[in-house]
Parts: sequence; structure tokens; C-alpha cells
Amino acid sequence: MKIATLNDGSRDGVLCVVSSDGRRFVRADLIAATLQQALDDWDQVEAPLRALATSLDNGAVDGDKVDVSKLHSPLPRAYEWIDGSAYINHIVLVRKARGAEPPATLRTEPLVYQGGSGTFLTPTQDIVHDSEDYGIDFEAEICVVMGDTPKGTKASEAGSYVRLVMLANDITLRNLIPGELGKGFGFFVSKPSTAFSPFAVTPDELGASWRDGRLHRPLVSTYNGAVFGNPDAGPEMHFSFYDLIEHVTRTRALTAGTIIGSGTISNEDVSRGSSCLAEKRMLEKINTGEFKTPFMRYGDTIQIEVLGDDGEPIFGTISQRVVAP
Amino acid sequence: MKIATLNDGSRDGVLCVVSSDGRRFVRADLIAATLQQALDDWDQVEAPLRALATSLDNGAVDGDKVDVSKLHSPLPRAYEWIDGSAYINHIVLVRKARGAEPPATLRTEPLVYQGGSGTFLTPTQDIVHDSEDYGIDFEAEICVVMGDTPKGTKASEAGSYVRLVMLANDITLRNLIPGELGKGFGFFVSKPSTAFSPFAVTPDELGASWRDGRLHRPLVSTYNGAVFGNPDAGPEMHFSFYDLIEHVTRTRALTAGTIIGSGTISNEDVSRGSSCLAEKRMLEKINTGEFKTPFMRYGDTIQIEVLGDDGEPIFGTISQRVVAP
Repeated sequence: MKIATLNDGSRDGVLCVVSSDGRRFVRADLIAATLQQALDDWDQVEAPLRALATSLDNGAVDGDKVDVSKLHSPLPRAYEWIDGSAYINHIVLVRKARGAEPPATLRTEPLVYQGGSGTFLTPTQDIVHDSEDYGIDFEAEICVVMGDTPKGTKASEAGSYVRLVMLANDITLRNLIPGELGKGFGFFVSKPSTAFSPFAVTPDELGASWRDGRLHRPLVSTYNGAVFGNPDAGPEMHFSFYDLIEHVTRTRALTAGTIIGSGTISNEDVSRGSSCLAEKRMLEKINTGEFKTPFMRYGDTIQIEVLGDDGEPIFGTISQRVVAP
Repeated sequence: MKIATLNDGSRDGVLCVVSSDGRRFVRADLIAATLQQALDDWDQVEAPLRALATSLDNGAVDGDKVDVSKLHSPLPRAYEWIDGSAYINHIVLVRKARGAEPPATLRTEPLVYQGGSGTFLTPTQDIVHDSEDYGIDFEAEICVVMGDTPKGTKASEAGSYVRLVMLANDITLRNLIPGELGKGFGFFVSKPSTAFSPFAVTPDELGASWRDGRLHRPLVSTYNGAVFGNPDAGPEMHFSFYDLIEHVTRTRALTAGTIIGSGTISNEDVSRGSSCLAEKRMLEKINTGEFKTPFMRYGDTIQIEVLGDDGEPIFGTISQRVVAP
């Protein structure tokens, strides 16, 4: 089942079900007004939502044509947005770029940070920042949306709490990071509002690509019209989503609708490119002694998607432009 | 106006208005079902809520007796919980306790971290953790609850976005902090679910005590039945709430219902005591060469309140006990 949120100008939008091919949608607000409400009442609403999706796929319900520009992120705001950093290659490269050492617990304990979750961007919303000097960067990621998840959930049981999978553009202001991390409390102003993919999909919709708490497909980032990276999100995700869930529930529970991110997808094979500019810059520094690729400038565009076997974007496409205020 | 949330077992509880003396309440769910909904629609609901509060205070509406054990935190979950650390004395002492230096920007740029906001404790809920070895500590704080606040809000205009003031017990697992901060991404498992005061009050309810974006009253922490600290929350709050708001809106907007915390209240005058155990321990270390006071043990109790001129707790009383799972 694919789910989307129609951006009708309200805070939390209108819950919709989308056809398997991503082309048609139908409002589902008679079942649950919003995706948050659906996640709050998942046991009651999952079956009717799936029935509606089936009706849309088999033609019993016509639906309307999807216009991604009219969609919000599936959750326009969420109670928590917890972002991991589960790809070792990314951590090692980006810390080198900052002149910082990887943590001693690199391979034994997940890195996560608590992100701002009150004001997400839509999948096609402009990325507006006051200065190009902030070092505006995209970060292409996979995310899961959780149901209620108890404190002390083990990785082995975490899969049953995953409701939906989607993509994120975890926009980062690179030049604000060093001063902020230097204060010792983690990211804040360096992590502005995040955008998510037009569609959130149930794990079963992903077939064999979803296994072991990882999405085994390439994540394609297209920067200013050219493919910038297509690393496989599966094999090199050192900590699976299930491992991340075990970690983040160690001392507290998660409410329904909590989003957990994978961190920037990264492969050791440099021919796969990168999912953020910081990595490419670090590789340039290693190979040539200097950074060459600038961070994003006003007018730059980024598209993020995962293609299905039919070549269509499973989650729709995040498609954003950086613009001046 | 004083507001509370009745804990009826639902996720977000029932919005209630409380009398000025904190003794009687009336359900306000015909005006807005929950506090989040009231904050979402504040311009429409503030006047009818205030009218209901007036009716309760002048006896036109009877209401029912407040039983704090039946209340939830005013927001049982929130879209963001951003906690500052605005008392310089606390930062300096606690960093000494961790063997860490205060940041170079100590007096020029606020320290904030993004806290988990999906699963708050009620004001009287037990603090349940797997081990006393986590170093369980309370932290008594003042908080504000925001309306929609634009990106780029200046301190001089921030006051108009503050909807409510309340207290927090920002429970901290001290012994999990060093390993976590060593990873460079800030707090996560060391900051479990926070509890807030029974009542959230509009700034006007605080009279002259609320000025310059600070609450000028002592915050009283009572640990195992004895007063542990009563520092004034006003004069030594180096960054006011308005300064914190300017900082946290530098690169993104805040949605209605975002909670911003002051950080642990602390005065340089040691006779005022402390608002967390870590500070007392550090003072012991400085004075005697060793930590004497242990962190919280199963069975320990903590009460946090601010008294009004009538000696009654303005925000009600946070009253919690640490218990084994």
C-alpha cells in the first residue's frame, strides 16, 4: 500500500491512498483524517485503507491523477524525527572532511541525533536559506515510520513496529556544523527543515527489496539534472533499521508516527557516486588536495528517488530547488 | 489563564481550564479537544477559553476539584521539545563534573539540544529505568509553549509568540552522557521521557514575575522530602527565552505547541541549593575532593514547583518517584 498526504493548506493535510503504479490517488479521510491519525489507530484503519488501495488498483474506484506538486510530505509534521548515520563509509568520509575522528564506537553503537520535526518541507518545496555561505547540502536517505514502539524493543522484534518506508532529503547547513558541534550538544541550526518523499509505502509493497531491516535498492540522487549518485541502500547499511530501533528505544518508548532515518546512503565503491555534496568534496580533497565542488547555490536542483523494477519511482520523487529568500 | 490536560487514557487527553487558585477545573473540549488543537487554533479559541476561565473563577461555572494524579502533562506529546541551557553557573559546574571545558561561545551563543517529544511522562508518573547505574538525575526547569513562530524571529519580537509557561523535570541519565557526547551527535538515550507541570499558564497570569522573557521567582525542588534548591529563575538566566527563540528560529520555523526549556535553573549563591544532583555533586567535589551525594535510587522522590504570593504552586507540583521496572 502506498500512502500520500494531500496539501490542502491545513496543518496536517488529507490522508490519501495511492495506486501501486503511483499514478492515481483517492482521498482516505473518511477512514482517517490524517496520516498521524491513521498511525494512531493503525490496528483499526489498516484493513479499510488496504481495501481502498485494492479498489483503486483494480479499477473499482477511479481516483484522480497524482500531481506531486500538490502533495505534502506524508507527515507534514511529526512527533519525532530521529536520524541515524548507519553507513560507515559516510561517517568516515564526512568526519575526515571536518577534520574529526570517527567515534571509537563506530561499528558497535549507532550514531543518531534528534532532528526538528515540527515544520517539514513538502517533497517539491523550495529550500530557502538566507545565505549560500551556510554550505547548503542535500542528504539522500531512507526512513521508516513507526507505530507505537515500547521501551526496550530488541532488533529481533523491531520489524513488527515498522509501518511505512519513505525517503528523506535531510538538508544540512555544512558550514554551521563545526561551531555547533563544538558546543557539544549536537546539531540544531545546522539541520533545518527536512523534506520527505511524496509516497510512504508499507514494507510488503517493497517485496524482496525490504529484508533484514534494510532497503536493498539503489537510491538515485540527481543534482542539477545529472545523476550524482546511485549507491545501493542495502548491503553497506552497517546498522539496520532494526538495530537503530533497538538503540533509540533503550531508555524510552516511541509514539506512533515517529520517523527514523538511515543517515546518508553511501557505498565504498566510488563509481556509485554520493548522496550528498560533502562526501564528493572529501573525495576530491583526498585525491587532489583540494575541495572542488561547491555546496548548493541558489538555483541548484536536487531530485531523490528509488526506482522500481518498472523504472518508476516507488516513493515518487523528491524534487527541490535552492532559492534566495 | 491556567490550562491542564485531563488524562482520560487517550493519547492527547482532554483540554481543561483551571481556576486561578489551581483548585477547580472544567473540561474545555467543546472549545478545543486537546491543548495541541487549541494551540493550532489559538486566535479562535483564546477568547472562549478565557471566558470559561473567568466563569470558573467568578463561580458562574462550578467545575470539579483538581486531582493532579488524574492530569497528564499539558501536552502529552509535542511536535518539538527544544531544551536550552541558559544558566551559565549550571553549564560551568556540570562541565567541570564531566571534566569538560565550557564552550568558547558560552556567553554569546545559546546552547540548545533537541529533545525527544513523543512520549512525555505525566506530572506524577513514576520514573522507571532499568538500572540505578544510569545515574538518574532530575533537572528542574522553566519552559514556554510556543504558537507558530516564523523563521528569523528576533528576540525583540519573540514575546508575542509565547502562549504558555510551565515547568519541566528534564530527567537525565548522567552516566550515559559521556559515551553519548563522545560520539559527537549530542544527547539521545541519556535524555529519556520528560515530565511537565500539571498546569500551563498564560504569561499574563504571572503578573510582574514574567518580564524580559524570564520568570522571576524561585523554583523549589524538594528531594526526598527536604528542600534541595530554591534558586531564582530570573536574574541569572543569561539568555532569556526571547534570546533562545531567536537562536532556534535562525534556520527554521516552529510549529504551534513547540516547547522550549530554560535548562536547569542555577544561582551562583550556593545557599540557594541546586536544581539537579549533578551540580551538588560538583560542589562537593570542589569543596571536599569527592562526590558524596549519589544519583537517584529506586524509591527516591522529587517535587518541583514555583510558589505564588499566596504560597500555592502556580503550575501545580511535579511529584515523581524513581522505581525499578
